[in-house]
Amino acid sequence: MKLRLYNARLLPSARASLEEGELLIEDGRIVSVGKPRAGFVADRSIDCGKNLLMSGFCNAHAHAAMCLFRGVADDMTLESWLYDRIFPLEEGLTEEDVYWGTMLQLAEYVRGGITCFADMYFYPAAVLAAAQNAGLCLALCCGSNSEKEDDILADIADFYRLYSTLSDRVRYFPGVHAEYTSTESLLARVADFAAETGAPTYIHLSETLKEVGDCTVRHGGLTPPQFLHKLGYFDNGGLAAHCVYADKDDLALLRQSGVTPVVNGASNLKLASGVAPVASMLRAGMRPALGTDGTASNNAASMFREMYLYACLQKEALKDAAAVTAADALAAATEDGYRALGFAGGVLQEGMFADVVLIDLSSPSMQPLAGVRSNIVYSAGTGDVLMTIAGGKVVYERGRYFLGEPLEKIYSECAARQKRLLRRAGLCR
Amino acid sequence: MKLRLYNARLLPSARASLEEGELLIEDGRIVSVGKPRAGFVADRSIDCGKNLLMSGFCNAHAHAAMCLFRGVADDMTLESWLYDRIFPLEEGLTEEDVYWGTMLQLAEYVRGGITCFADMYFYPAAVLAAAQNAGLCLALCCGSNSEKEDDILADIADFYRLYSTLSDRVRYFPGVHAEYTSTESLLARVADFAAETGAPTYIHLSETLKEVGDCTVRHGGLTPPQFLHKLGYFDNGGLAAHCVYADKDDLALLRQSGVTPVVNGASNLKLASGVAPVASMLRAGMRPALGTDGTASNNAASMFREMYLYACLQKEALKDAAAVTAADALAAATEDGYRALGFAGGVLQEGMFADVVLIDLSSPSMQPLAGVRSNIVYSAGTGDVLMTIAGGKVVYERGRYFLGEPLEKIYSECAARQKRLLRRAGLCR
Repeated sequence: MKLRLYNARLLPSARASLEEGELLIEDGRIVSVGKPRAGFVADRSIDCGKNLLMSGFCNAHAHAAMCLFRGVADDMTLESWLYDRIFPLEEGLTEEDVYWGTMLQLAEYVRGGITCFADMYFYPAAVLAAAQNAGLCLALCCGSNSEKEDDILADIADFYRLYSTLSDRVRYFPGVHAEYTSTESLLARVADFAAETGAPTYIHLSETLKEVGDCTVRHGGLTPPQFLHKLGYFDNGGLAAHCVYADKDDLALLRQSGVTPVVNGASNLKLASGVAPVASMLRAGMRPALGTDGTASNNAASMFREMYLYACLQKEALKDAAAVTAADALAAATEDGYRALGFAGGVLQEGMFADVVLIDLSSPSMQPLAGVRSNIVYSAGTGDVLMTIAGGKVVYERGRYFLGEPLEKIYSECAARQKRLLRRAGLCR
Repeated sequence: MKLRLYNARLLPSARASLEEGELLIEDGRIVSVGKPRAGFVADRSIDCGKNLLMSGFCNAHAHAAMCLFRGVADDMTLESWLYDRIFPLEEGLTEEDVYWGTMLQLAEYVRGGITCFADMYFYPAAVLAAAQNAGLCLALCCGSNSEKEDDILADIADFYRLYSTLSDRVRYFPGVHAEYTSTESLLARVADFAAETGAPTYIHLSETLKEVGDCTVRHGGLTPPQFLHKLGYFDNGGLAAHCVYADKDDLALLRQSGVTPVVNGASNLKLASGVAPVASMLRAGMRPALGTDGTASNNAASMFREMYLYACLQKEALKDAAAVTAADALAAATEDGYRALGFAGGVLQEGMFADVVLIDLSSPSMQPLAGVRSNIVYSAGTGDVLMTIAGGKVVYERGRYFLGEPLEKIYSECAARQKRLLRRAGLCR
């Protein structure tokens, strides 16, 4: 399949200048940026109407199927949210629930320009099936449903074997949910697995003050990053979601191991968990990625909202309106996310994945045009996305979705499944 | 003009339950909610497709024409933002600039469901002309271009005479920009004018820590609310924009005078000014309104983003995820704003202004539907608005704008004017 996107304004990367021109796509990859190419005969030519063509977004931390729980666990304390709502609801989850919940989340993803995502949840085969339906780039993380250590390790080994060589648009990161939901022995064995395979790992890290405090009590004063470092968990690098309470020493340790923090501002804010020290990360030379977390805690999967918060929460926290810039946020949402997940994308460049998004410059939110990058980060929203292309395939175009399942079917499945899970947990009649 | 909106899900007010039915509109007012009415012959019947019909939003604090400065003053400290960018740009503003800048902002307003707004800026006649073009409900505030005290007072008296009895959809609030940009004598004379006319007043109040500190130094230890109280500035109540650093005593004083705080979370965050104590306001029995502030500091005019931040910034500030609820945010964005500005709107009720918005429930952001109110506040965005009706007139419908000026003309005027102002201020070639 050959696509030609012409009459566009191109933003090749987060810190680049705008160019006018066209983008050529072949077999899921970008083959030319800016200029037409002699002899290129497109299967479809798309007039971009002088709108903005840029990389699709990478949502580097989420739990897509939790979309099933949107709107049923709000305005509660973190403990009540988790123990009175989320855990009882998750007890009833089936593999089919995860498939349909993920499909719903993917509809929201593509409408908001997300072309690549990391996912940490149960039933990774269902998440993979959904992502492959839609054609999105997927980094699966952890994913075991088991409770026994041996079984978890066996699952991780299975998943790694199954998903590591499946396609250049799928990766698998061994790991566990978090330090506070694991044992030292399990963490050490995951570290051993990483050492054997050379795989980078994934984990929730230093999300709440309680997590950090409990860890230091349990492990002789070591913070979660220090404790994981001691076990060799990050010897091949990897990703650490949240890092809200990672201090300077923690960040230095993570940077030394090549770990990328994934910032999730909206979820942390809504659960009153804190604000990640983005400026310290940047000053330490790190290139954080950006995630939405699950929609049970966010409650939107909007990378636009995340970019806004990535910059602005830090401005407020440091009382410095210049602390983090629009370009920093845009890089975290695109190229730094793709890089952290190990995919060839996040910029418009020959040879990269054709994961691109067309932004409506004739939306009032984008006018006037003097500060296009600012407008994307501080003003635009998911409604300003005209088209999303993932792996060279149009997956969203002006209100129409091409996800491999009809939208109506996704909605009716999710409505019925949400109801069943709420009833089962005693949360509705 | 008679409108019938049928096959809708109706949310009559912020804390009400959903109903199914229809809404009848005649001569700019709601004449029936829920049920059909015998003998009502509509000029236009609109099938709402089972989508959500609710009150339009009230943006209770903004400077619409500052839309001209969107994207040209970002990632700077507050001082640099104001003195190196905004003030030099504003020096060149003409009345026509304000008209076109306001028209651009109104396009963004109606796309995001805003049907009523307060506006504090120069050239109020231009702001009024724009609002009347579009049919939005407008509260003009302050608005003098003059620098001499006598001239400012004369302007306020003129504006009050001109705009107070013009239409039931226009109001005028006498006032000045802020304590720190006025003299004690001017504030006292505005208070006298309010006493003579019985008019409630408007002002920026306790927006930054510096403002509060400087005021206490200048005025014998009095905070801005205490100082204004002493002068009788709020003897007829009114609105106080920001109130970020209003403490419990300040809030008690404001409440006693019947003053409504207008919260502007996004702007305060981006300028690193602080987080307004919304929970304290609610506990004090106040009903805050919600505003976007100008798009030079926000940079979007999205009441969806404001609602999200209204609840979530306070959750984080108090480390209590239950501190402020979705219903609180929805009330601030609708009925409490209309009430504070003195307009008959903000709820779907017979006799009220037909200021309504149709939200797309088939958007992925709104699915599943279990928590519709949560979805509106925490998940929806401006892109989920299907239709906006102001004063019984359709002003926005699925990408089309009915503002009295063509969108293309608004964009080209604003682009040229932005360029001229940037050049004049030496900010571009």
